[in-house]
Amino acid sequence: MSETKLTSNSLQHVTVTSPFWKRYQELVVSEVLPYQWAVMNDEANINMSKDPQKIQGADKNSHAVANLKIAAGKMKGHHYGFPFQDTDVYKWLEAAAYSFSYHPNPALKTITDDLIDLIADAQEDDGYLSTYFQIDAPERKFKRLQQSHELYTMGHYIEAGVAYYQATGSEKALEIAKRMADCIVRSFGTGDGQINGYDGHPEIELALSRLYEVTHNEDYLNKALYFLRVRGTEPDFFEKQNKADGLENDIIPGMRDAGERYYLDAEPIADQKTADGHAVRVVYLCTGMAYVARLTNDKTLLEACHRFWKDIVKRRMYVTGNVGSTTTGEAFTYDYDLPNDTMYGETCASVGLTFFARQMSLLDTNSEYADVIEKELFNGALSGMALDGKHFFYVNPLEADPQASALNPGKSHVLTHRADWFGCACCPANLARLITSLDQYVYDVKPDRILSNQFIANQSEFKNGLKVEQTSNFPWSGEIHFEISNPNQVETLFGIRLPNWSKANYELKVNGDVQDIKATDGYLYISINQEQLSVDLSLDMATKFMRASNRVSVDFGKLAVQRGPIVFCAESADNEAPLWQYEVSTKSETSYEFEPDLLEGVGTITVDAKLPTMDEDGADLYTEATDEKLEDTKIKLVPYYAWANREDGAMRVWLSKE
Amino acid sequence: MSETKLTSNSLQHVTVTSPFWKRYQELVVSEVLPYQWAVMNDEANINMSKDPQKIQGADKNSHAVANLKIAAGKMKGHHYGFPFQDTDVYKWLEAAAYSFSYHPNPALKTITDDLIDLIADAQEDDGYLSTYFQIDAPERKFKRLQQSHELYTMGHYIEAGVAYYQATGSEKALEIAKRMADCIVRSFGTGDGQINGYDGHPEIELALSRLYEVTHNEDYLNKALYFLRVRGTEPDFFEKQNKADGLENDIIPGMRDAGERYYLDAEPIADQKTADGHAVRVVYLCTGMAYVARLTNDKTLLEACHRFWKDIVKRRMYVTGNVGSTTTGEAFTYDYDLPNDTMYGETCASVGLTFFARQMSLLDTNSEYADVIEKELFNGALSGMALDGKHFFYVNPLEADPQASALNPGKSHVLTHRADWFGCACCPANLARLITSLDQYVYDVKPDRILSNQFIANQSEFKNGLKVEQTSNFPWSGEIHFEISNPNQVETLFGIRLPNWSKANYELKVNGDVQDIKATDGYLYISINQEQLSVDLSLDMATKFMRASNRVSVDFGKLAVQRGPIVFCAESADNEAPLWQYEVSTKSETSYEFEPDLLEGVGTITVDAKLPTMDEDGADLYTEATDEKLEDTKIKLVPYYAWANREDGAMRVWLSKE
Ligand SMILES: [Zn+2]
Ligand SMILES: [Zn+2]
Repeated sequence: MSETKLTSNSLQHVTVTSPFWKRYQELVVSEVLPYQWAVMNDEANINMSKDPQKIQGADKNSHAVANLKIAAGKMKGHHYGFPFQDTDVYKWLEAAAYSFSYHPNPALKTITDDLIDLIADAQEDDGYLSTYFQIDAPERKFKRLQQSHELYTMGHYIEAGVAYYQATGSEKALEIAKRMADCIVRSFGTGDGQINGYDGHPEIELALSRLYEVTHNEDYLNKALYFLRVRGTEPDFFEKQNKADGLENDIIPGMRDAGERYYLDAEPIADQKTADGHAVRVVYLCTGMAYVARLTNDKTLLEACHRFWKDIVKRRMYVTGNVGSTTTGEAFTYDYDLPNDTMYGETCASVGLTFFARQMSLLDTNSEYADVIEKELFNGALSGMALDGKHFFYVNPLEADPQASALNPGKSHVLTHRADWFGCACCPANLARLITSLDQYVYDVKPDRILSNQFIANQSEFKNGLKVEQTSNFPWSGEIHFEISNPNQVETLFGIRLPNWSKANYELKVNGDVQDIKATDGYLYISINQEQLSVDLSLDMATKFMRASNRVSVDFGKLAVQRGPIVFCAESADNEAPLWQYEVSTKSETSYEFEPDLLEGVGTITVDAKLPTMDEDGADLYTEATDEKLEDTKIKLVPYYAWANREDGAMRVWLSKE
Repeated sequence: MSETKLTSNSLQHVTVTSPFWKRYQELVVSEVLPYQWAVMNDEANINMSKDPQKIQGADKNSHAVANLKIAAGKMKGHHYGFPFQDTDVYKWLEAAAYSFSYHPNPALKTITDDLIDLIADAQEDDGYLSTYFQIDAPERKFKRLQQSHELYTMGHYIEAGVAYYQATGSEKALEIAKRMADCIVRSFGTGDGQINGYDGHPEIELALSRLYEVTHNEDYLNKALYFLRVRGTEPDFFEKQNKADGLENDIIPGMRDAGERYYLDAEPIADQKTADGHAVRVVYLCTGMAYVARLTNDKTLLEACHRFWKDIVKRRMYVTGNVGSTTTGEAFTYDYDLPNDTMYGETCASVGLTFFARQMSLLDTNSEYADVIEKELFNGALSGMALDGKHFFYVNPLEADPQASALNPGKSHVLTHRADWFGCACCPANLARLITSLDQYVYDVKPDRILSNQFIANQSEFKNGLKVEQTSNFPWSGEIHFEISNPNQVETLFGIRLPNWSKANYELKVNGDVQDIKATDGYLYISINQEQLSVDLSLDMATKFMRASNRVSVDFGKLAVQRGPIVFCAESADNEAPLWQYEVSTKSETSYEFEPDLLEGVGTITVDAKLPTMDEDGADLYTEATDEKLEDTKIKLVPYYAWANREDGAMRVWLSKE
C-alpha cells in the first residue's frame, strides 16, 4: 500500500456524464457560443425590443470584437458600447476554453486562437488593455476607476487567459495575462507614482489570485491582497478621482450618485458587517477575499469571508439561490428583505455566489458551500438560460406576471420571457462559463481527502490513480452509485456530501452493505484502501414543503415546494386560476411524475390544493370576511429553472398556505 | 302646509359641531393656515431633509408669494419653484375662505384681502396669470401645455376666487376669476387663432364648472365641456407643441417621457375603459366630468363618469380609500393591483376622489358615493395630516417600515413620519381646503329631497325653514340623534344614509318608535311634514374583519379590521413582535376601548392573535415546514388616520390570517 499525498492538482480529469448536464454543456457549444460569437461580431439577428436592461443607447450592435480590432490598429472607428464591453469577449473565450475539455472543437479552436492573436495585438506595450480608453480616452487611463471598469475588464481577460492556457497550453494567452497583471502591479500601490486605490467593480482580486496559482508569482497575490486591504480605507478615493477627471465627465451616467454602499467602500472590508451594495460586485469581491484568504491565511479576510457568507446565505438569499433584492443599483437591501416580485436576482449574481461558495469550500471543509452551489446549479443560476440555449434572463424573479411587468413600473425590470440578448450582456456568458466548467465543481481535493460535492454523474481520474465513476439520474432520482477503483490501493479519505435536504433520511451502502455512518461537517466519509469499491447512496427524494424564516415578512404564511435540490414553481401554463388563490398545507398530498416530453424532460409535482370561488369582477372590493367555501383542486408545479419556456404567463414559487 | 321647492341653493348654513371634526377644523385655523402662510412667505423654519418629493432643486424656500409680487411689479427677481407654485397660494386662500364660515377671523381676513389685491395686480390685462411664464418665459405662454400647468394653475385660482366670493362677498375675487376664465375661453377652441388642445393636468374643467354655477355664464360651461371632449382626440397634441417649443426645453425634466397614459389622453374620454394615469389628474378630470355631466346632462360623459367611478372604487382603491398603486408617475397601475408597501396613495388623490364622489352624489342618488367620502374623511385623506396639524404625508402606505424605507430603494418614497413640508407642496393645502369645507359634504339637497350623507354632528338650516340638529359621538359611537324642526311644516323627503358597513344591522326610531324602513339606494327615507321630529339611528359598531376581493393578490389570506367607518392598523409602538407575525382569524375575540389620552382620543381595538416563536437570527433561512407552535397573544390596533404620531416604527393594515 503506497501513500500519495493529495494536492489541489491531484485531480486529473473529470468527465461529466450526467444526461441532465450533458444536454446543457452541449447546448452551450451548439447554441450559446456560436450565437454569442455572432453577436460580438455584429452578425446576429437580435430582438432586444423588450430588454429592460437596454441602457445608455445600447442596441443590437455589440461591437465588442470591432473594439479590439480598432485598438489593434486593424480597423478604424470609435469605441462602441459600455467601457467594459471587452469582458463579453473574455467571458466568451473563457467559456469556450472550458468547453474543449468535453467537446474538442477544431473549428472553434481556430477562432479562439485567432482571437488570442487579436487580443495580443490590441494590448499595449506596457500590458494595458481596455479598448474604450485606448480608442477614445487614452489620457484618462486609471483616472476614473469608480466607473472605468479597467481592472474589472483586465481581470476578466486574466481569468480567460489562465483558462485558455490550462485548456490548450497556449503560452501566448498566459503571456497576455501576465503582462496585464504586471501593468497593474506596477500602476497600483502605495509607492511613488502609484495609484493608491481600487476598481469600482471587484474582479481583479480573484483574477490575480488565479494567475498566481498558475504562475506562482507572489507579486500577483500580494497585489490582490493589497486591493482587498486598501478598499474603503479612504472612502472618498473615487470622489477625488472624479473631481480631478472633471466631475461632470461621467463615463456611465448616474454612476457618481450610486453611493459608497454600492461600491462596497464605505469602510474597510475588515469593518463591514453586512453584504451591502451591488450584488454582483459583492459576490465577486467575496470570491476574491476567499481566494486570497486561502492562499495567504489572512485572518481578517478569513473572518470577513465567513461574516459575508453567513449574511448572504442566512439572511439575503432566495430559496432558489438568487440574490439581490432590488433593481435600484442591482443590489442587496437589508437582512431578511426578500420581496419576490420586485427583486433583481441577476443571473451573474447567482453565478458569482457559486464562485464564492466554491472558494469557501476550498477554504473550509463544510458541505454548506456545496449545498449552495447545488442550489444555484439546479435553480437560481440555471434559470438564466432558456431550454433552447437561445434566450436569457438577466433578472430572475420568484413571482412574475406579464400584466404586472407591463403596467406596474416597479416591476418593469422583470421579464416574463427570456430575451434574445441584452445591451449589458454580462449574464449569458457568465452562465456559459459556469456550465462549461461544471467538471470543476464536482470534487474538492484537499491534502487529506477527496470530497465528492455534487451529484453530477461523472467519470474521474485522480493523479494517485484513483478512478471514480458516479452514475445516477439525478436530480430526478436520488439513487447515486459510485464505482471506485484504486489500482495503487492508496489510502484515501473519500467524503460524499450529504445534502442539507437529505440530512434526516438517507442510506449509505458500501459494497452492498448498509453502513451506519453519520455526517461530519456534512460529509459521509469512507476510508478507501481496497482496490475496488462500490458505494450506493440513497437520498431523500420526498417532496417537501419549505418555509422561510419568519423574519422574512413576504414569505410569512407561504410554502415553497422542493424535491431533492429542485425548487418548484407554479405557472399559469399549467394552472387555470390566479396562482395566489391556490392554498396548500404541509399536509397536502403530492404526487411526483417524470414527464419526458415536457420542457426537455422534467419532474413535475401535483399538489392537492384548495381554491376559493373567484370573486366577481367589479363586485365590492372589500367585504366582511366570513368562512370561505373552498373547492378541492390540484396545482401543478414545474422546476423553477424551467419556467417561462412556454406561453407568456404568471409564475410563483411561494404558494399561499391554507 | 306649504310647498317649497328645494334647490341646490336651499341649504342655508351648516355648522359642524362634531367634536372630532371641530378639533381638525380649528387645527387648520390655528396651525395649518398660519404655518403655510409663513412657508409661502419664506418665513417658516422647515426641515425638509427627509422629503422624498424633494425634486428639481426644491428647498426650504417656497417663494410662492414672492412670485406673485414679482409678477405684480412689486419686487424684482426670478420665478422660483415649480411652474404651478402659484397653486399653493390659491389652495391656501380657498381653505382660508371656507374657514371663515366657522371661525370669523379679521386678522386673517386682512391678509386674504391684501392677497386678493396682490393677485389682481399680478394678473395681466388680458386675464392671464401664471407667474412662471409672466416672469421668466412670457414668449412661451400656452405653448407647452403638457408641462406648463397654466390652466391647472388658473383653475385653482378660479376655485379659490369663487370660494372667497361666496365666503366674503368679494366681487374683486370673483372678477379675477372671470377675467382668467375669459382669457381661457378666448384662447382655446377650434376657432381661428385658438389653441385646439388642453392642459396636461386637468383642473380647469371643474373650475370653469364652479364658476358657471356662480356666474351662469354659459361660455364657461361650454369651454369646460370642450376641454373634456377634445382631450385625447389628437394624442400627439403635446408632442407637436413640445416640438414647436423646442423639444429639449422641458419645463419639468422627465415629463416628456411620461406617456399618454400619464396624461389621460391616449384616446378620447368616451373611449377610455379604465382609470389610467397620474392618480390626481384622473380624479380631478373625473370631478370635472361629473360636474359637467350634471350641468349638461351629456350622456357620453355620464357613462364615462360611471365607468371610471366603478373602475376606481371597485378595482383600484385601497380599503382606506387611498388610490395610486405606484410611485412612478404617482399613478394607477391596473385592475386589482394594490401593493401595500410600494404604493403611492397621495393625499391629494384621496382629496380628489372625495371631490369626484361628491359630484357623483349630486349627479346620482346612491349612498355609495357618500360611503367613499366617509372612507376618505376618516381614513385615507385624513391620514395626510398629523394630529398636531404641523406635519404631513404626501404618500400614504398601508404597510410601512422605517428600515424598508431607508434601505429598499423601491420604498424610499414611503415616509414613516410626516414631514414638515414638501418641495411639491400640493397635499397639505388640499387637505386643508377639504377640512375647512366639511360642511359642504354633510347634505345633498336635491329638488325632491334632502339627503343627510355624513354622520358629522351639525346644526343646519335650510331655506325652506327646516332646521336639523344632528348629535352623536361618531365615529366612536354609532348612536346618531336627529332633532328636526319644521316651523313651516313643509313636506320634505329626508334621507339618512345607511352606511355600507351597517347595512345588515341598524335600528331607526322616529319620535321613539322603531320604524321598519328599508334602504332605497342606500338611504333610509322619512317623510317630514310635522313641526317637530326626533330621529334616532343606531348603527352597527361591531368590530369587523374585512377581506379584499380574492382578485387582489397581495391581500389574499389577509384580514383588515374595521369598526364603523374607521379602518384600523397595527403599529410597532403598541406591539412588540414583527407585525406580520401576528395571526388573526375571523373568529378572533376583539375588544374595543376609547382611550381619551391616546392620540388625541381614539378608539383602539385589541384582537386575540397567535404568534409563532421568532426564528433565530442567522439560523437556516429555509427549512422544512412543520406544524408551527403558536402562542396566544393580543395585537393592539389604532385608527389608520392616527398612525405615525408616536415614535418611528412599522405599521400595517392587512394582518396575517391564521
Ligand atoms: Zn449579469
Ligand atoms: Zn399632493
